[in-house]
Amino acid sequence: MKIFNVLMGLLCLMTAPVSGLAQEKIPSKGLAAVSNKGKFEVYEFERHAIGDNDILIETMYASICHSDLHHVHEDWGSEEYPMVPGHEIAGRVTQVGKNVIKFKVGDYAGVGCMINSCGDCNYCKANLEQYCKNVVMTYHAHDQYHGDEITQGGYSNNIVVKDQFAVKIPENAKMDQIAPLLCAGITTYSPLMQSEVKQGDKVAVAGYGGLGHMAVQYALKLGAEVTVFDITEDKRQDALDMGATKYVNVNNEDELKGMDDSFDFILSTIPAMYEPAMYLKMTKYKGDFAIVGLPALDNQPTLTVANFVFLGGRNVYGSQIGGMKETQEMIDFSVENNIYPMVEIIEATPNLVEEAYQNVLDGNVKFRYVIDMKTLK
Amino acid sequence: MKIFNVLMGLLCLMTAPVSGLAQEKIPSKGLAAVSNKGKFEVYEFERHAIGDNDILIETMYASICHSDLHHVHEDWGSEEYPMVPGHEIAGRVTQVGKNVIKFKVGDYAGVGCMINSCGDCNYCKANLEQYCKNVVMTYHAHDQYHGDEITQGGYSNNIVVKDQFAVKIPENAKMDQIAPLLCAGITTYSPLMQSEVKQGDKVAVAGYGGLGHMAVQYALKLGAEVTVFDITEDKRQDALDMGATKYVNVNNEDELKGMDDSFDFILSTIPAMYEPAMYLKMTKYKGDFAIVGLPALDNQPTLTVANFVFLGGRNVYGSQIGGMKETQEMIDFSVENNIYPMVEIIEATPNLVEEAYQNVLDGNVKFRYVIDMKTLK
Repeated sequence: MKIFNVLMGLLCLMTAPVSGLAQEKIPSKGLAAVSNKGKFEVYEFERHAIGDNDILIETMYASICHSDLHHVHEDWGSEEYPMVPGHEIAGRVTQVGKNVIKFKVGDYAGVGCMINSCGDCNYCKANLEQYCKNVVMTYHAHDQYHGDEITQGGYSNNIVVKDQFAVKIPENAKMDQIAPLLCAGITTYSPLMQSEVKQGDKVAVAGYGGLGHMAVQYALKLGAEVTVFDITEDKRQDALDMGATKYVNVNNEDELKGMDDSFDFILSTIPAMYEPAMYLKMTKYKGDFAIVGLPALDNQPTLTVANFVFLGGRNVYGSQIGGMKETQEMIDFSVENNIYPMVEIIEATPNLVEEAYQNVLDGNVKFRYVIDMKTLK
Repeated sequence: MKIFNVLMGLLCLMTAPVSGLAQEKIPSKGLAAVSNKGKFEVYEFERHAIGDNDILIETMYASICHSDLHHVHEDWGSEEYPMVPGHEIAGRVTQVGKNVIKFKVGDYAGVGCMINSCGDCNYCKANLEQYCKNVVMTYHAHDQYHGDEITQGGYSNNIVVKDQFAVKIPENAKMDQIAPLLCAGITTYSPLMQSEVKQGDKVAVAGYGGLGHMAVQYALKLGAEVTVFDITEDKRQDALDMGATKYVNVNNEDELKGMDDSFDFILSTIPAMYEPAMYLKMTKYKGDFAIVGLPALDNQPTLTVANFVFLGGRNVYGSQIGGMKETQEMIDFSVENNIYPMVEIIEATPNLVEEAYQNVLDGNVKFRYVIDMKTLK
C-alpha cells in the first residue's frame, strides 16, 4: 500500500499541473551552430522553468527552414552563437503549468516561429501576435519575459513555451511530416486566406521549395488553377505531379511569353535575388502579389514607384507567418485534408544537419529536411 | 430673304453634325516646347479632321501638370519636339461628328490624359481605358487611329477628340478652375474610391501640390481625418486652412515620431525622390498605400522585398488617372460639392509658361497654373 501511494504520488508529480513557483530550470540538449560558417555541434543548455501557463514539449521532429540558413549565416543581421535553430517543431507534451487547460500531458503539440508576445497591443488583440513589437522569436532572440535569456530553437530535445504559442496537433496527424507546417505551412496558408483565393482563381507560386510546395497544395485544395515558377528543370515533374497546370522555368524566356495580366494571386516564396516587377506584371488588375520569401538583406529585390504606377491597380503586400489562431486553423485544415510537406527525415547529428544545409543552399532538397530529434545523442 | 437663307445655311454649317467624309484637317495653334530645355514657342500645326464620333473643342483653359514638366524635360524617356503639352483641358464644343449624341455645340467639355483606346480589350470593356495597351495619350504620343500622327495637347486653341474621351462639364461649373480636375482630380479621386475611403478613416496625403491639395479635399468630403506631409513650411497654413487635422514637415524628424501604423490610407503624390518605406510603416495593418506620383525614371524611389515582409499586411498599389466613366463621376462629384483646385491664371505666352514651369519645379505654386488659352496670340 505504501509503495502504491508512492507510485501514485510520483505519477501525479509527473502528470499534474506544476506550479511556476520554485520550479527548476529545464536541462536541454540541441544541435547548435557555433558561428556564421554553419558548423554545428551538440550543445547542452538550460531552458527557463515551466511557468503556470507554460508547457514542456519533448521534441519529436524539427525541420530545416530556409530561414534557419539565413539566420545561421547572418544574412538578416548579426546573431549570437551558439545558436540552436528550428522553428518548425512537433512533439509531445510532457509537463503543463498549473493554469494550462489547453493541453494535457501526452498531447501532441507544435511550436512555430514565436513563443511569446505582449498580449496587450492591437496586434495581439487581433490574433496577429507575429506583428507585436515585443514578440519573442523561438530562437536567436532575447526573451524579455524571462530575464532576457537567449531563446534556443527546435533542433533540441525539448522546449518550454506558453500554451498560447503552441498549437494542438490532432492525434491522427502524420507526426514525422507535420513540423514544416508550423512555418512553411502557415506562411503560405495565411496570404491565401488574406487574398481570399477561391475556386477557379488563377494562382501562381514563385519558388517551388519548402514554402512553395505547401502553397501549391493549399491553392489546389481551394480550387485554384496553379502555375509554378522556378529556375530549374529538376522540379518540373514534381510540380505537375502535385497538380500544377503549368510549370515555368523562368530561365527559359520563351516560357514567360504571354503571361502578363494572368493571375488573380501570385505568391513569391523566393529566398534569393529576383525581379519582382516580372511577377507584378503577370498579376491581373485588382489581383494580389503577396511576398513571403525574404532574400538576404544586403542584396534585396526591389520594386520602384514607377513599377507600381505603370502596373497600376495590382496590390503588393508582404506577409509574415500567421497569428496563433490562424496557425491552429491551418494545422486543422492540413490534417483534415491530408496536406503535408514532402520530407526527407534525417538523424540528429551535426554532420547530417550541415550536409542538409548545403543541399538546401544548392536547391537540392525535395522539399523539407525533418530532423528526427529522438536520435539526438 | 436670300440673305436670311445664306445666314441660316451658315448657321447650320456651324452647328449641325458634320460627316467624317471629305472633312478638312483642323488648323491649330499652341505653345510648344521646342526641346528638353523647356523653351516654349508659339507653334502652328494641324489636327486630324473631325470624324463621325469626334468633337472639336475650343480650348478655354489648360492647366500645367507636374507631369508636363517631366515630359518636356524627358524625365520619363525620350520625346519629340515641338511638343504642345497639356492634358488638363476645359473648353466649349464647337463642332460635333454626325454620330455624336453625347455633346451638342455649345456644351462645356473637358479632356484629360487620353484621347483614344482600342475599345475591345478587357480594360476598355471594364471602363479602365487608361490601362489599354493601345491607349493614345493626349500629347507626346503617336495616334495609331489617325495615321500615327503625333498628338498635341491642350496648351492650344482647340482639340479634336472622340466623344467618349471627353467629359461633360456641367453648365454651373467654374470653368477657370476646372481644367486641373481632368488629371489632378481624377488621379487622386480614383485611388480614394479604389480603397473605399470612408467617414472616420485616417488618411494621409504625401506631397501637397497640385494633386495633393485635390486629394485632401476629396478625402475631407468623404469624411476622413486628413494629415498632410510635405517638405516645406510654406504650405503648412494652407493645409490646415483647407481642413487637414495635421501638417507634417518631413524634414523635421520630431514631427514624424509616433506615426507608425497610423493611417488607413496613404496617398503619395510625390514627384521627386523620397522614402516610400517611411509611408508603408505609417500605414495600418490592412491599410492601403497608394502611389500616383511618378518621379524621374533615372532616380526612382524603391521598396524592397524586406520592406514588404517586415511591414506585412499593408497593401501597396499604383494608380493611373482613371477611366472615362470614373472621370465623369469625379467631375460631377467635384462640381456638386464645389471642389476645385486653387489656381493661378496666366496668359498664354511662352515667357509666362516658362516662368510657371520654373515655379512648379521650385515648388513655388499654390497650387495649379491655369493658362487662359483665349489669350493666345
